[in-house]
Amino acid sequence: MGEADDITVMVAALRGKFGAASVLTGEDAQAQAHGWSDFGTPLAVVRPRSTAETAEMLLAFTEKGVPIVPWGGKTGLVGGGSATGAVAISFDRMAVVEMIDSVDRIMLVEAGCTVQAASEAAEAKGMFFPLDLGSGGSATIGGVVSTNAGGLRVLRFGMMREQVLGLEVVLADGSIVSALHPLMKNNTGYDIKQLFIGAEGTLGVVTRAMLRLRPALPSRSTALLGLNSFAHVATLLVELERRLGGMLSTYELMWAETYRMATSPPSRPRPILPNGYGYYVLVEAMGGDQDADRERFEAALAEIMESGIIADAVVAQSEREADDMWSVRHDGELTELAPFVAVDVSLRVSVIAEYVDTLRAEIEALWPGSRTALVGHIGDGNIHVVVSLEKDDTADRRKAISEAVMNCTARFQGSISAEHGIGLDKRNYLSMSRSAAEIEVMRAIKRALDPRNLMNPGKVLPPVPGKVCA
Amino acid sequence: MGEADDITVMVAALRGKFGAASVLTGEDAQAQAHGWSDFGTPLAVVRPRSTAETAEMLLAFTEKGVPIVPWGGKTGLVGGGSATGAVAISFDRMAVVEMIDSVDRIMLVEAGCTVQAASEAAEAKGMFFPLDLGSGGSATIGGVVSTNAGGLRVLRFGMMREQVLGLEVVLADGSIVSALHPLMKNNTGYDIKQLFIGAEGTLGVVTRAMLRLRPALPSRSTALLGLNSFAHVATLLVELERRLGGMLSTYELMWAETYRMATSPPSRPRPILPNGYGYYVLVEAMGGDQDADRERFEAALAEIMESGIIADAVVAQSEREADDMWSVRHDGELTELAPFVAVDVSLRVSVIAEYVDTLRAEIEALWPGSRTALVGHIGDGNIHVVVSLEKDDTADRRKAISEAVMNCTARFQGSISAEHGIGLDKRNYLSMSRSAAEIEVMRAIKRALDPRNLMNPGKVLPPVPGKVCA
Repeated sequence: MGEADDITVMVAALRGKFGAASVLTGEDAQAQAHGWSDFGTPLAVVRPRSTAETAEMLLAFTEKGVPIVPWGGKTGLVGGGSATGAVAISFDRMAVVEMIDSVDRIMLVEAGCTVQAASEAAEAKGMFFPLDLGSGGSATIGGVVSTNAGGLRVLRFGMMREQVLGLEVVLADGSIVSALHPLMKNNTGYDIKQLFIGAEGTLGVVTRAMLRLRPALPSRSTALLGLNSFAHVATLLVELERRLGGMLSTYELMWAETYRMATSPPSRPRPILPNGYGYYVLVEAMGGDQDADRERFEAALAEIMESGIIADAVVAQSEREADDMWSVRHDGELTELAPFVAVDVSLRVSVIAEYVDTLRAEIEALWPGSRTALVGHIGDGNIHVVVSLEKDDTADRRKAISEAVMNCTARFQGSISAEHGIGLDKRNYLSMSRSAAEIEVMRAIKRALDPRNLMNPGKVLPPVPGKVCA
Repeated sequence: MGEADDITVMVAALRGKFGAASVLTGEDAQAQAHGWSDFGTPLAVVRPRSTAETAEMLLAFTEKGVPIVPWGGKTGLVGGGSATGAVAISFDRMAVVEMIDSVDRIMLVEAGCTVQAASEAAEAKGMFFPLDLGSGGSATIGGVVSTNAGGLRVLRFGMMREQVLGLEVVLADGSIVSALHPLMKNNTGYDIKQLFIGAEGTLGVVTRAMLRLRPALPSRSTALLGLNSFAHVATLLVELERRLGGMLSTYELMWAETYRMATSPPSRPRPILPNGYGYYVLVEAMGGDQDADRERFEAALAEIMESGIIADAVVAQSEREADDMWSVRHDGELTELAPFVAVDVSLRVSVIAEYVDTLRAEIEALWPGSRTALVGHIGDGNIHVVVSLEKDDTADRRKAISEAVMNCTARFQGSISAEHGIGLDKRNYLSMSRSAAEIEVMRAIKRALDPRNLMNPGKVLPPVPGKVCA
């Protein structure tokens, strides 16, 4: 019996047990394989309704040597969910917020619940789930756990890793590791959940998560600032953190060219702050008392302006004005440059100015006339580098630009993936940001938990030369 | 050649290469084996001056099958550093703060540097390292990484895990894994440092750490509050977090009996707040502007008092008064009850009131007349349970009391170790807080990184029945 027959038999058996809608094949499966990037050609898509079903469906395939790829909201950008030759597990039927407790400040959520749905459920109970991503309407909890997503408030609240108290995962052998601890402190043995966070599904499949919540922070103070030097950008961050005493939640930077693009027609009729400054920072603080917080926020900005660190500033006077400032930041990456290559990197703040000069010069030398836009979660040293392509540019050129950005980043001891992960697209560059000894430890862990290399195989770790599997 | 001869040969070789002071044996070694708990009878104590020396010394022993136990400040309370039958590695000659950068907000520190020395070095550069432990004058960075220490400001700044950006470790085979990344965001493959944080030296030996710093927060607002119900304790936490907008750094609870002990002679002549309330909370907020922060802090307390949640309050009017309030908290555990058994547990806040009633009743039933004091980092659900012993009480009684506390904790789905770790003393109780599936994953990781079980063997993981090694 060939592999295709094998799959047909397994699919029939699972449909018999779990219902026709539980397994998609052929065109129905392929119709699901679209998202923010390519999701390949899956052998089948299974749709469990519980952790037990996930384990049973997964084992049905892995015991025959068929690999498994978990799918969340399919917003990944590095090929981490590409399921060619594998069975995809979709969590679209496991999207329930099972429990929210505002005394214990926790939330128990199924893997397929979107970030937005989880946030709204928390908000309805007077609580706050801080992860804030552009993709939050689609990205799922299982996905943001598996990629350790970042976003716009990492500076204050940390990445997804810091929001996870406990996890439930299914391993390659079908065993369920249920570690849904609701505790902030739990030093009982190895903190194994940390392994699965950011592993992109290569060690196991996340089915549920116990998340940490915070009390609602109803006040929001937002400002757009113009600065003249990168040194001021770095100093301002420290000054604001000190003066706002923990309220600072967002510190986003746009370089001048990016700001110009995001505020000129057709993006919008005119800029909020005039063009001409070297750097534009979007700052947001969150707290519990709108009037007192606003007063404190404005006083901090006014004091810092006196020192000359801030050249120009406008404070949002309403939610509408704040949203308008955010729309500039969100437009900053995309509108004018498409099609483009985007690379997500991070660096020490102290080297960013020199890095950017070097990078621009290298890109200009190799691809004269291409345009480079830079925006960043600069409070975290995270920059999204966006380089324009021509309409008919080849995949080779796309790859060459991406490699040039990563090469430059590595020379400045940066990370070639700050928040998007490694997936398929960056696995061959992993050694730019990790030493051979680190990669050896990763391989040892992979072998320990997935000895047959069936969990999202080929992702994250570079292929071993001369070996078929990782 | 017997093992003793083997050791003698290795010691002579290491002394020849690294100097006489690099290896202690006999009485000199034993003289080092004292700390806050028992550190056993080491075969020898080696004292490397660098990571390279650590790797070479370690391998000299592990390649002959001699186990290794890392020693930090020897403030551990669960037998994690007991070195009987093993060679101890002392980091007393690796205690340097190698680098502090206030723009990148990072600090590179050797494992033997004390928490206090690291904090003071950060402070001298206008920065802040938030870990605050009673043992900070002795506890080392390597130790607090290996135990994922907590302390008094976890609520705002997280445990040690959240302060670590990168680590350097030596594995059992002598290989050096240098992953001293200075980046806040780095999603390039498995976050392997997370494995070594809290592993108590059972997977590798930490030699250096890259730590995250924050800007200095020079303002401190401190208050002692009296409350009448545990429900108010839980509500007050949420209210303060919301109103102080991120400034709240400490939320410590003393139960009435504990407070009475800590504020009566001989501890001090009179209490700060009168006795008679059910609960006493020590609150601290940190920020950048003493006057504005104090005003905000007092306004928040005044508003909450109007709602009746706080029954009585006193705000410290000077550093001296704040220190005095802290001395009550620090005395809360110790003075009057010694000798005692102390157990460090954590629970969901919502069950703590019932847990405490149940626990007190069980202790009273089993050991009538014993006294139980409770203090806690209640913002994190972390309680230190202290039960008095008689002077001539046996180790068996000590063990029985400790087991009773852990048993009760497990019934309330709590953690039997919130911040002290598992070590030797709690390894047989690990299954109270971790499922069999979780412990299996831990064993798989242990086998992957330390296949010969030579790194702090016998700690953390319970012995496998019928097997000599883990």
